[in-house]
Amino acid sequence: MGLKFEIDKKSGKSRLGRLITKHGVVNTPAFMPVGTCATVKAMMPESVAATGAEILLGNTYHLMLRPGADLVEKMGGLHKFMNWDKPILTDSGGFQVMSLSGLRKLKEEGVTFRSHVDGTKYFLSPEESMKIQHKLDSNITMCLDECTPYPSTYDVCAKSMRMSMRWAKRSKDAFIDREGYGIFGIQQGNVFKDLREESAEALKKIGFDGYAIGGLAIGEGQEKMFEVLDYAPQMLPEDKPRYLMGVGRPDDIVGAVLRGVDMFDCVMPTRSGRTSQAFTKYGPINVRNARHREDPRPLEEGCDCPLCSHYSRAYIHHLHKCNEILGVMLLTWHNISYYERLMRGLRNAIKSDTLEQYVAEFYANQAKGDIEEI
Amino acid sequence: MGLKFEIDKKSGKSRLGRLITKHGVVNTPAFMPVGTCATVKAMMPESVAATGAEILLGNTYHLMLRPGADLVEKMGGLHKFMNWDKPILTDSGGFQVMSLSGLRKLKEEGVTFRSHVDGTKYFLSPEESMKIQHKLDSNITMCLDECTPYPSTYDVCAKSMRMSMRWAKRSKDAFIDREGYGIFGIQQGNVFKDLREESAEALKKIGFDGYAIGGLAIGEGQEKMFEVLDYAPQMLPEDKPRYLMGVGRPDDIVGAVLRGVDMFDCVMPTRSGRTSQAFTKYGPINVRNARHREDPRPLEEGCDCPLCSHYSRAYIHHLHKCNEILGVMLLTWHNISYYERLMRGLRNAIKSDTLEQYVAEFYANQAKGDIEEI
Repeated sequence: MGLKFEIDKKSGKSRLGRLITKHGVVNTPAFMPVGTCATVKAMMPESVAATGAEILLGNTYHLMLRPGADLVEKMGGLHKFMNWDKPILTDSGGFQVMSLSGLRKLKEEGVTFRSHVDGTKYFLSPEESMKIQHKLDSNITMCLDECTPYPSTYDVCAKSMRMSMRWAKRSKDAFIDREGYGIFGIQQGNVFKDLREESAEALKKIGFDGYAIGGLAIGEGQEKMFEVLDYAPQMLPEDKPRYLMGVGRPDDIVGAVLRGVDMFDCVMPTRSGRTSQAFTKYGPINVRNARHREDPRPLEEGCDCPLCSHYSRAYIHHLHKCNEILGVMLLTWHNISYYERLMRGLRNAIKSDTLEQYVAEFYANQAKGDIEEI
Repeated sequence: MGLKFEIDKKSGKSRLGRLITKHGVVNTPAFMPVGTCATVKAMMPESVAATGAEILLGNTYHLMLRPGADLVEKMGGLHKFMNWDKPILTDSGGFQVMSLSGLRKLKEEGVTFRSHVDGTKYFLSPEESMKIQHKLDSNITMCLDECTPYPSTYDVCAKSMRMSMRWAKRSKDAFIDREGYGIFGIQQGNVFKDLREESAEALKKIGFDGYAIGGLAIGEGQEKMFEVLDYAPQMLPEDKPRYLMGVGRPDDIVGAVLRGVDMFDCVMPTRSGRTSQAFTKYGPINVRNARHREDPRPLEEGCDCPLCSHYSRAYIHHLHKCNEILGVMLLTWHNISYYERLMRGLRNAIKSDTLEQYVAEFYANQAKGDIEEI
């Protein structure tokens, strides 16, 4: 029952692993593109798969509102509904609901909130979140938790983390275990080491298929985040996958892999595709910038995505200046390709004992910046 | 030099033909998806080709504004710029410029106008339009003409048509002939038969690779349009392709093919993809309609587009309710697929002498309407 995780190789704190689910294997370190509303925005699922992505993240909050978990279940589950037959991880809905300031009311039992779409009242508890994620047929279910803002006082973080741990127990109890499906606990504790420790111990006592590091990348900055990541992953079981939620930029991911994290998700590559921001080997590029107007070169030399294979910078610049949907489609595709290529690079480097060189080269290239000369 | 057109079969007034260009063959009757700004909105060019489309239309007005004809030329022409290696027809820019009421000034020499994008002043004449279309490397160049509104008086239409015929001569004179490239004249005359006749005679005297019927589908209604099409196509040379500009809905196209038209273009399938309207064998469907919310069936049984092959009505309904880009992508793909399937059906029916049955079945199915029962 549950999920299998096998670690094939280690390099420092970094690990090369395989997470085995009912819908296939996820090679780690892995990046999960975000498919909020049962679609990775502006991407066909086969195109997402073509980038090398092996797992998607779905948002329980959005899906419970539209189209609703009952409907997704009726349609055969999220995989079938959205035509994605590889693994899916769903968050618990907690993070989005907690962000609905003014529209939600939190109690020990759970949280009452109103939909941002039409104001309908909903109730979300650990048990309810498990039920919804079960109906979605998610391969990896996340515990319902509360995430404190940054900065928060020690007492606020301690109180919140302890409730999240009680919710973790209730989540685990309500989760229906099946072969190839699993549930992840979520470590909280904000930037306080002893709270992170207390949280990790509570989660280990319950026992999960994997462990997420929650409550980071919420405004504390990369330096502070890395400080926490210097110790937090090591508090979690060595033999289970570790997932840093909502992270991040390419250099966040590289730094987190070096610190022992195995899984990531972030809207960055998809959202940036809609706001004309490209990720490349030589750092970010804004394709609306006038310097690309007459540039016949590909966006990123050596990238095998359709944008870089068949079009010029002049063309993607033109599409974004004209607000053409194809501009969003191609740039999103490129950005996810970039992220998945980065993860493949990290995996290969761990495998071949060249992680140090790989990371040094990564930072050197990013520091170079996009080459201006044509 | 120019374009070759071969007619393989006739059935009543309808013709099965092949238009041979430098970039490949266009089987007629043909529908041209519209790629206004060097992109068929929300479609990868390989997806457009996958629907069976063999030729696209590009809009000279939009392209001369953004990114500009000089830039497209510098990037190797429109085919290369937009990664579409099949034939391209460009309009002259006239129709869009003439629609800029208040922003344009028309003289015998040409028309001065201001860009709707940034107010920049431009001048468009027959010679200038030819120059631009040449730079775009369009396989089929259209003469610059003026299109009268409906209704207009006889005198207005006569005067306008005669200027268009003088412009047709200037267009032809300015066009640079090359093997596999050609120029089409445009018949005007609004709904007046003798003006259509006079226009056809003027065009034939100049001599073109093909002949368009302009100035229809501008609010006169299908009945009035078919009245004109009952005679207008026959006024044009039998051995050259006839192109009905800006038409139309599926039943407009079927009616026009029966009246001897070979080529069509229209924003209908692409625009409808963005406004939740689907074209199907059983007539139009609005995918936002609540009746599709829990419908597990494909949008159109038997359609081989990705939407109908892999997704439910419930899913496309969901995507459009959430304003997801993938909803636009999938529905546009379906709509273009529908149009191209219709054209294949018409071509096969002419070939196999079953056009009458095909058309009868088309109307019977459209009249049935979408089946409500699940």
